[in-house]
Amino acid sequence: MAFRIERDTMGEVKVPIEKLWGAQTQRSIMNFPIGSPASMPIEVIKAFGYLKKAAAYANCKLGLLPEEKKVLISTVCDEIISGKLNDQFPLVVWQTGSGTQTNMNCNEVISNRVEQIRGSNPVGANNIIHSNDDVNKSQSSNDTFPTAMHIAAVKILNEVTIPGIKLLQNTLEMKAAELDDVVKTGRTHLMDATPLTLGQEFSAFAAQLKYGINSLERTLEHLSELALGGTAVGTGLNAPTGYDELVAELISEFTGFKFISSPNKFEALASKDAIVESHGALKQISVSLMKIANDIRLLASGPRSGLGEILIPENEPGSSIMPGKVNPTQAEALSMVCTQVMGNDVTITIAGSSGYLQLNVFKPVIIYNFLQSAQLLGDACVSFNSNCAIGIKPNHERIKMHLNNSLMLVTALNPHIGYYKAAEIAKKAHTENTTLKEAALALGYLTQDEFDMWVDPSKMTGK
Amino acid sequence: MAFRIERDTMGEVKVPIEKLWGAQTQRSIMNFPIGSPASMPIEVIKAFGYLKKAAAYANCKLGLLPEEKKVLISTVCDEIISGKLNDQFPLVVWQTGSGTQTNMNCNEVISNRVEQIRGSNPVGANNIIHSNDDVNKSQSSNDTFPTAMHIAAVKILNEVTIPGIKLLQNTLEMKAAELDDVVKTGRTHLMDATPLTLGQEFSAFAAQLKYGINSLERTLEHLSELALGGTAVGTGLNAPTGYDELVAELISEFTGFKFISSPNKFEALASKDAIVESHGALKQISVSLMKIANDIRLLASGPRSGLGEILIPENEPGSSIMPGKVNPTQAEALSMVCTQVMGNDVTITIAGSSGYLQLNVFKPVIIYNFLQSAQLLGDACVSFNSNCAIGIKPNHERIKMHLNNSLMLVTALNPHIGYYKAAEIAKKAHTENTTLKEAALALGYLTQDEFDMWVDPSKMTGK
Amino acid sequence: MAFRIERDTMGEVKVPIEKLWGAQTQRSIMNFPIGSPASMPIEVIKAFGYLKKAAAYANCKLGLLPEEKKVLISTVCDEIISGKLNDQFPLVVWQTGSGTQTNMNCNEVISNRVEQIRGSNPVGANNIIHSNDDVNKSQSSNDTFPTAMHIAAVKILNEVTIPGIKLLQNTLEMKAAELDDVVKTGRTHLMDATPLTLGQEFSAFAAQLKYGINSLERTLEHLSELALGGTAVGTGLNAPTGYDELVAELISEFTGFKFISSPNKFEALASKDAIVESHGALKQISVSLMKIANDIRLLASGPRSGLGEILIPENEPGSSIMPGKVNPTQAEALSMVCTQVMGNDVTITIAGSSGYLQLNVFKPVIIYNFLQSAQLLGDACVSFNSNCAIGIKPNHERIKMHLNNSLMLVTALNPHIGYYKAAEIAKKAHTENTTLKEAALALGYLTQDEFDMWVDPSKMTGK
Amino acid sequence: MAFRIERDTMGEVKVPIEKLWGAQTQRSIMNFPIGSPASMPIEVIKAFGYLKKAAAYANCKLGLLPEEKKVLISTVCDEIISGKLNDQFPLVVWQTGSGTQTNMNCNEVISNRVEQIRGSNPVGANNIIHSNDDVNKSQSSNDTFPTAMHIAAVKILNEVTIPGIKLLQNTLEMKAAELDDVVKTGRTHLMDATPLTLGQEFSAFAAQLKYGINSLERTLEHLSELALGGTAVGTGLNAPTGYDELVAELISEFTGFKFISSPNKFEALASKDAIVESHGALKQISVSLMKIANDIRLLASGPRSGLGEILIPENEPGSSIMPGKVNPTQAEALSMVCTQVMGNDVTITIAGSSGYLQLNVFKPVIIYNFLQSAQLLGDACVSFNSNCAIGIKPNHERIKMHLNNSLMLVTALNPHIGYYKAAEIAKKAHTENTTLKEAALALGYLTQDEFDMWVDPSKMTGK
Repeated sequence: MAFRIERDTMGEVKVPIEKLWGAQTQRSIMNFPIGSPASMPIEVIKAFGYLKKAAAYANCKLGLLPEEKKVLISTVCDEIISGKLNDQFPLVVWQTGSGTQTNMNCNEVISNRVEQIRGSNPVGANNIIHSNDDVNKSQSSNDTFPTAMHIAAVKILNEVTIPGIKLLQNTLEMKAAELDDVVKTGRTHLMDATPLTLGQEFSAFAAQLKYGINSLERTLEHLSELALGGTAVGTGLNAPTGYDELVAELISEFTGFKFISSPNKFEALASKDAIVESHGALKQISVSLMKIANDIRLLASGPRSGLGEILIPENEPGSSIMPGKVNPTQAEALSMVCTQVMGNDVTITIAGSSGYLQLNVFKPVIIYNFLQSAQLLGDACVSFNSNCAIGIKPNHERIKMHLNNSLMLVTALNPHIGYYKAAEIAKKAHTENTTLKEAALALGYLTQDEFDMWVDPSKMTGK
Repeated sequence: MAFRIERDTMGEVKVPIEKLWGAQTQRSIMNFPIGSPASMPIEVIKAFGYLKKAAAYANCKLGLLPEEKKVLISTVCDEIISGKLNDQFPLVVWQTGSGTQTNMNCNEVISNRVEQIRGSNPVGANNIIHSNDDVNKSQSSNDTFPTAMHIAAVKILNEVTIPGIKLLQNTLEMKAAELDDVVKTGRTHLMDATPLTLGQEFSAFAAQLKYGINSLERTLEHLSELALGGTAVGTGLNAPTGYDELVAELISEFTGFKFISSPNKFEALASKDAIVESHGALKQISVSLMKIANDIRLLASGPRSGLGEILIPENEPGSSIMPGKVNPTQAEALSMVCTQVMGNDVTITIAGSSGYLQLNVFKPVIIYNFLQSAQLLGDACVSFNSNCAIGIKPNHERIKMHLNNSLMLVTALNPHIGYYKAAEIAKKAHTENTTLKEAALALGYLTQDEFDMWVDPSKMTGK
Repeated sequence: MAFRIERDTMGEVKVPIEKLWGAQTQRSIMNFPIGSPASMPIEVIKAFGYLKKAAAYANCKLGLLPEEKKVLISTVCDEIISGKLNDQFPLVVWQTGSGTQTNMNCNEVISNRVEQIRGSNPVGANNIIHSNDDVNKSQSSNDTFPTAMHIAAVKILNEVTIPGIKLLQNTLEMKAAELDDVVKTGRTHLMDATPLTLGQEFSAFAAQLKYGINSLERTLEHLSELALGGTAVGTGLNAPTGYDELVAELISEFTGFKFISSPNKFEALASKDAIVESHGALKQISVSLMKIANDIRLLASGPRSGLGEILIPENEPGSSIMPGKVNPTQAEALSMVCTQVMGNDVTITIAGSSGYLQLNVFKPVIIYNFLQSAQLLGDACVSFNSNCAIGIKPNHERIKMHLNNSLMLVTALNPHIGYYKAAEIAKKAHTENTTLKEAALALGYLTQDEFDMWVDPSKMTGK
Repeated sequence: MAFRIERDTMGEVKVPIEKLWGAQTQRSIMNFPIGSPASMPIEVIKAFGYLKKAAAYANCKLGLLPEEKKVLISTVCDEIISGKLNDQFPLVVWQTGSGTQTNMNCNEVISNRVEQIRGSNPVGANNIIHSNDDVNKSQSSNDTFPTAMHIAAVKILNEVTIPGIKLLQNTLEMKAAELDDVVKTGRTHLMDATPLTLGQEFSAFAAQLKYGINSLERTLEHLSELALGGTAVGTGLNAPTGYDELVAELISEFTGFKFISSPNKFEALASKDAIVESHGALKQISVSLMKIANDIRLLASGPRSGLGEILIPENEPGSSIMPGKVNPTQAEALSMVCTQVMGNDVTITIAGSSGYLQLNVFKPVIIYNFLQSAQLLGDACVSFNSNCAIGIKPNHERIKMHLNNSLMLVTALNPHIGYYKAAEIAKKAHTENTTLKEAALALGYLTQDEFDMWVDPSKMTGK
């Protein structure tokens, strides 16, 4: 392999000649051979694209960077945002906890790519655009990395997570309406209970997601606050006055999402509470989705020896050994995603609480877990929606069979004959394996007409 | 021991004669000998006091319960709320997952206590007030227990948790103002960094808590929704029209906190997402407090071989063997509470996600953990505030020593001589163990006057 | 209230006259008003009873403590072990993270109780037995508290947890044998699958617990290592040679469980990994029990609209509104306990990882959670065993119905006609709602005799 | 793109012509667009390579598969093991919870690759080797996927995790020996305490890892048990007698690691407790490593305003804004890995407890998290070892300064003058900012000679 020599303040490093990164990126590759290469999420890299561009614009407007350099830097930033330079970002999550090496990876690639665009060879420290003094001007890793985290988080929530969950919520609401007259037995403690409609059952699912989305959207406020302008420890040393507000405006403009400058940069560097807060909402949603996925597979269980009250789409052969088997695979994928999000929440909780003094140094692991949760939840909702939820149908035959068998219809008698006599009827029917009506009449607590009038499942759903 | 005979639909049970509970409570004592007795939080019992009273009022107003019975029931409810009957609630958290037995414990005690007040002996099923048909009228465990959970949660958050955290937040803000001109070395990665003021450092703590309280207060909306009126499965079977709204109004009136009737009772019974959501905010706050507690003990470490930049109150001898030792014990208590809350969050997450169909049956464990977290966080903030935070003082001598030694003051030179030359100065001073100024002048990159003008810590804090 | 004056190295403190504790305990009461009083588990206090007695014996044998003092100290220790002095230990978990205040609580109570036994009044620092110089001789909180943790942990595991789990394991094995010829449909993905016996199903439960107990018992080795003798930082300063080994022998003798002196006292003070390790096994067991509890309630679901393949004991009325309802309440209590243990594991994980340098200062919260898990798991297994597991019976009627209906019996045809043709048969039967045999013959892939010979559920269980 | 038509029991599917997978793999790609493609760990695929080869050998030996087919199948298996076919496995973790689709992916690729090797075109169901009837013979996804999990787990633990941790443990032991005479101040509660040696401090780290490795190695026993032979529900339906033992022997032979056939196949399918158990040990190790990483960065903090008692290698420039800054980046990477493992443990706990009846359907998420933890821990230990631990050096100057300043040396006086007088000396020195000796002599509690004899740090370390 052919190399060129790059330099940083520690000396020389050999870099593969076809790569645009510099000495510090190369050091990181060598010093952190942990897990798969390039595990730092590409969403973070693209967020850096927006950020570096906005910094160049702000520095230029505030008189610290010539127009020419601004144009050169932002040209490369646009390439980074487009994904064109994805293979220039080889670093892993498990690097320095401030993400300094990924910040420098961006600085170095921009510096060297400018040379390449200009038709000359990258020479690191002597490039026309200097990685530290130009690309990183008015910045520190300590304010850029958390800013990139927030940009990436706001983008994925708005573009993937929330739309995905809303899609499923809408389908569940549609199902709630569509199935609103299908009276069925309720179940509490997994035991037969009083009736409700299948639509009512689905309305609970939809309501859960509505609350969850509401929780999640509220966290966007804290997430929209950017650390940029705080530089090394939050004081804004080496950044010009007005820079922090300006750069937040520019990032809003470039990304299309509203960001503001954090009112307390010390908090913004030392904690990652905004991410903790937002992932807490993702975790809440995973709790809801786990319940929903479990209920769907319970209701669809069978086909002959389970509850079997709903039919879900048959998407693939379910077994490599049992011919003709069909399984609730979408519910399984969704619930596996939920367990992942619940575990990620613990990682983020621990990492978020473990910062010391002016800097949280668990930033890469925090954003890695956040983006994984946000992506998986959004994707899994879309998949579950289109491959399962929209195709759910009631199995009227089994629903009726279960409803008519239910001993808990006896509850309707409470107001008429009292809890104790009603219990006597239910127990008699249960023990003697008869219908409720037979037991009720045998005990003589009411007439056949009264029974028929009072015990009418369709009147017991509150509709 | 003397006993009386109580009955329920399953038959007779012996109850200690001096106790007011009935057959079902006694069965629960016998069937669930798990952990310490009476572990069901008393806050839940008191919430049932409000709830049963409101139900009696609503049933009366809607024509289902005679005025006389309403008065009798509500008299006992007031006793329950006052704590007078605390020793009549012997059940444990580890009972039926719907809390049915605690609901019946309340119903039975009210029924029997009415007899006692009337001067007769409790006779269970034959009492003037029937535990199921009167006290539990228009109710099910499935809507009462979650209602009691929300009442207890809203009360403790408003009465203990939020005031405790706000107290500490205020002190931290006061400290931030008071210490705003104490310039000190910053630290990132635990390594010396550019300066900030001690006030700025404390402002980050205060900001963290502000965000946390904000998050927590937002969850009160979902928590204020009550399941009551949904009865067995959410349909409101056996509850009269208008009852749900009325009962929520009455609970608001009796407790002094605003509650509304849940717009979707199916969600309110089948999930406990409101608690999951609210505890998520408690967990976020524990993340912040863990960071704060850790920083306080780091800054106070020493007295001679640590950072030693702040002095915290000396409250007790710190060691049974090392004479004269004083330790950051309030920070330790607070951080232990934080780890408890983080673990409780996982319990609530799993329990909240594990409901099936119409009912979550992990309710007792959920509210037990929620109330523990809410109480401990509130109490620990008050204790930390009064026994530590308000007494914090700067150790000016050490602060100055650290500040003047810091090689990272060199950062102020970046805009003047560039990152690379500045690095050269810092490294020279580090290696040769000299001051920055000596190294800078030796390298000839600037004059003594320039150094003195550019490297001024008090100008580096952005104040 | 009447008080007496106690003193410590910080000065005077008023203590309620009827209490035996001293100045440092009283300071702790005042400084840590967090949560319920006396939350420090009594098991820890009793473990201190063994420990202080052993220390007195060892100090005496090694010539550092007169025989007379040994006798006086150990007399009070025996009272502590017996529970007679339980109300002299008012401190909370949320105190100093080293448990120093609980160590001093023990030292002070022993010192003062000796005076009381001798017929004089407790006068703290001037007592015949000095709390620091006599009771705490050759000790530090830093080696006593972790030692008490290990003693308490080993005792509860051996006396409560392991016997409770083994009781249930034995019952499950008995059931596995008893139900070994009850052929039933299997279910994978909650969908009908090939047959097995009910005994085989229960054998999996029993096997899970066997592995769990095995895991748990292996952790006793690390738990049996005692920190005592390490004193303040692990070096054993102020403890005589041979003391550590001797004290471990004495604790073994007094408790009846085998303990040894930790080979690395620095590890024993700075980490609580032995507890982390052991609680990891408790968590594994909670994973198993959660699965078992869930399966039991699934199999018992119904009575008419669920799986209904087993009958579980009816222990109490299940509903306050639905007459005659019976619920799987033991499974619910057990599964709630499991969620508690899973959350406690996270608390212990975080607390265990958060020690700094020579001392872990999360010890009280760690042992509090450990003992709660150990007690609840043991108790819940006993309760579940006697109130549910031993009474489980098969519901032959429903088992047969499900078995005979199952389309997955078709799997037995794979070796004869291949997976694809078998799938065709199953799908045809499913779509047309016929029996497998009808579908098979209609497709002409085999004869009636072949079908009867090959598709025999009782031959499909590998028995 | 060019396609060919593949078929399964549900019908036809178009597959890219250059790909070797079949209909079911293609359906899975279309049905589960969740997260990044090909997220199913390649270690699982390679484990399937061993497993399918062993199954072919066993089926052949037991007379169910012709020698020719055995050879063809095992040829492709060897290619899979070698990594040559890696790009034929496009499926994600978030598929069916049994891993059926990955099992079929293997079956299909083997079937089609055989055709390719034979020089003909893959035609799916008509290939000479049938994916279900030949490759999957005597198997089900339900026993193959858990078997592949165990193979992959045993391999990575033995090849990556354990060697990595042991490497670090050895270095720490070496450091413990090397630094055994460097006397330094101890710190408890982050406050100055009695002395120990730097070697003793490192010996605690080494001991922690020794216990952790011991815990981990014990879990290999359960992990070595293979589900294979249980087929669909554990009964072994359609697998010949002796097959399970034989196949475990063959897998042992092919992999070089000892495996046995699980004594209870029902447990092996229905639970994933072996993985839960083993990951519990990984979590314990992450607890230890978090402590170690934190201590290293505390001890190395500074260079001028921290503890500064050790020097760690300077591997890269630490800051993009602060010139000359060097950070404890290896400790940061390691501690981030630890938080990941702790979160993964929660995912595995929840997923492991959520199986129903005959099958755990969270298998892909469980093995994904397990392998990530195992890889990251092993890699991070190697990286931390070579880039940090082996280069650690004492900073004698600061160590001496701290030691000599420490007021806690006073503890050595306890046996001579008692705890109270010793405390008086320490407090006087602290308040008046003098040396201990000055304070001791001023108080007149001992002579200068006594002080010098009794207060000798080098005698206080128990060496």
